Amino acid sequence: MYSSESLQQFARQVFLRMGCPEAEAALAAEVLVAADLRGVDSHGIARLHGYVRLADLNRVNPRPVVRTVHETPSTAVVDGDAGLGLVVAPQAMQLAIRKAQQAGTGWVAIRNSNHFGIAGYHAMLALPHDMIGLCMTNAGPLVAPTFSKDKLLGTNPIAVAVPAGTEPPFVADLATTTAAYGKLELLQRKALPAPTGWVQDADGNPDVDPHAVRKGGALLPLGGDREHGSHKGYCLGAVVDIFSGVLSGANYGPWVPPFATAGFMASAAQLVGAGTGHFVGAMRVDAFRPADDFKAQMDNWIRTFRQATPVPGAERVLIPGDPERLLEAERRKNGIPLLASVAENLRELSGRFGIDAEFLKF
Amino acid sequence: MYSSESLQQFARQVFLRMGCPEAEAALAAEVLVAADLRGVDSHGIARLHGYVRLADLNRVNPRPVVRTVHETPSTAVVDGDAGLGLVVAPQAMQLAIRKAQQAGTGWVAIRNSNHFGIAGYHAMLALPHDMIGLCMTNAGPLVAPTFSKDKLLGTNPIAVAVPAGTEPPFVADLATTTAAYGKLELLQRKALPAPTGWVQDADGNPDVDPHAVRKGGALLPLGGDREHGSHKGYCLGAVVDIFSGVLSGANYGPWVPPFATAGFMASAAQLVGAGTGHFVGAMRVDAFRPADDFKAQMDNWIRTFRQATPVPGAERVLIPGDPERLLEAERRKNGIPLLASVAENLRELSGRFGIDAEFLKF
Repeated sequence: MYSSESLQQFARQVFLRMGCPEAEAALAAEVLVAADLRGVDSHGIARLHGYVRLADLNRVNPRPVVRTVHETPSTAVVDGDAGLGLVVAPQAMQLAIRKAQQAGTGWVAIRNSNHFGIAGYHAMLALPHDMIGLCMTNAGPLVAPTFSKDKLLGTNPIAVAVPAGTEPPFVADLATTTAAYGKLELLQRKALPAPTGWVQDADGNPDVDPHAVRKGGALLPLGGDREHGSHKGYCLGAVVDIFSGVLSGANYGPWVPPFATAGFMASAAQLVGAGTGHFVGAMRVDAFRPADDFKAQMDNWIRTFRQATPVPGAERVLIPGDPERLLEAERRKNGIPLLASVAENLRELSGRFGIDAEFLKF
Repeated sequence: MYSSESLQQFARQVFLRMGCPEAEAALAAEVLVAADLRGVDSHGIARLHGYVRLADLNRVNPRPVVRTVHETPSTAVVDGDAGLGLVVAPQAMQLAIRKAQQAGTGWVAIRNSNHFGIAGYHAMLALPHDMIGLCMTNAGPLVAPTFSKDKLLGTNPIAVAVPAGTEPPFVADLATTTAAYGKLELLQRKALPAPTGWVQDADGNPDVDPHAVRKGGALLPLGGDREHGSHKGYCLGAVVDIFSGVLSGANYGPWVPPFATAGFMASAAQLVGAGTGHFVGAMRVDAFRPADDFKAQMDNWIRTFRQATPVPGAERVLIPGDPERLLEAERRKNGIPLLASVAENLRELSGRFGIDAEFLKF
């Protein structure tokens, strides 16, 4: 087990060595380790060496000048200057919050960014302002639309954070696929088959091989197949792609750069936009009704759903955000488990950058 | 087969007899028959007698004074004065469009409304303005959240309409359940079992009985079960409920009135808000980038996805909105099929209101 503080300090040191300014290195480390704390291990410290590789490939700019290239009272387009999504997305979210303070809501489309960690972190930035936060991003193509053999969409997550009163906030954060890629990696390590509806093979047939994507297959949209509503998951992933990529002037569909693949070196001429795209929003609750009224009703909403009768075999009904919050409390107390391969990656980074990391020496 | 014009004229006459003003009767009829044209038969003329029953029960106000009760530059809350959702929602959408013209985007939460037909119709109102349209609504509780035996959510649809250039627009319109209730009704008439993941029985166990909901069971959120991502469908349905019901001051969760059940007569004191809630939005495309640039990229997006290689057994990859548009063209030409029971309902209405309906005499 590793303490979140030690992982965060280590990540901060790595981002500093990559050339990030002090404040941005700290922010990037915080966003990254928020994923580990909330149980989205695939998007946390396990990706640190991937970000370093992006920098090695000159695909990420450690000292970006993030600028607003277009705006109206309630909207803006931000160019991330090829910075880390981990720092570009929170800046864009702060802009959305400022817009919402003036205009009731703020909506910012971001181009020329990179992987931003977990969507939920950025959406939750709205909560202390009594605002609803929204966040989505496109991502490298791993997902085949309904009826398609080709991979044209990313796992394209959507996060929505809603403030409550005395109850903890409602935080939904979901990939628009049946299962996130991290869930497949778990099955790969255990050598277990994937449930139906998670993947298809290279020919476009339903498959249960957890390695299917690496073998030329694809992840499937939420629903899995047409009969179970995969066209709806495809619609949702497509909306995320259009809001994040087409509205902003980033890449979209099959052109979205993969996270950190050494082989990816498309020239600008082959692309349809700049980098990866995100879309974030903030809505002031009191742009609709007094914040106290809203939060009292949200408390009632949350309690009503939490008190529902569970189905046989289930302990209780959960509110979106409950599992992540409970895990965060547990991991802040007891530490974060790391796979041996991830710890090894961190030791390599420690050696390369000459970062003293006592906590990795065991 | 019945022509859309004759059905629309008939519905207009019925709404007039219900007491609606001329323009609103025409609008309600247009929205209603748009569902039949686009193939959402369960939300079209088949519901006409249900709207009449709502009026008989004094649950719908045929001459509503729709008013804005709160606003900021980019938001408003509208009270629908218990009017037909079929006319309240388009008015709210026009307000969102006006807000967007000024502030870049416009977001309107609606309370004290009723069933509004298909969400896609309202979202598409933004398209002629070079805006992206969004529309969602809550609905009477038929859906059990993941792990819940109780029905706490409606089928809570989301529609997103995106303008393109030379290609037809992108129009996603989806219930946040594995299958809409209309799909179950089809299976009931054919006495066929439902696929797994569509419904659970009264005890909360997975079921394939297409009559399960009537027997105390529930529809299931998109995904069907936890392993196939039903918690994501639950999150989406919950977000629709919160935006439509809690932001607006309408009812939410188990308190949302059912469409037209004679037994439903809850007093205001038992409720948590006013009527059914909707949430609509409009985003000016050029609040983000020049409209022509955006639409050219959307054309490229649409062509790229349409040209994807189909999986074995599939003819081609569809763009959201394709099936509905193709069906509308066919039905405008060849007419709309009605179930015998629906035609019989219309004949009853014809007799009750003394509306001459030659087209129903066969």
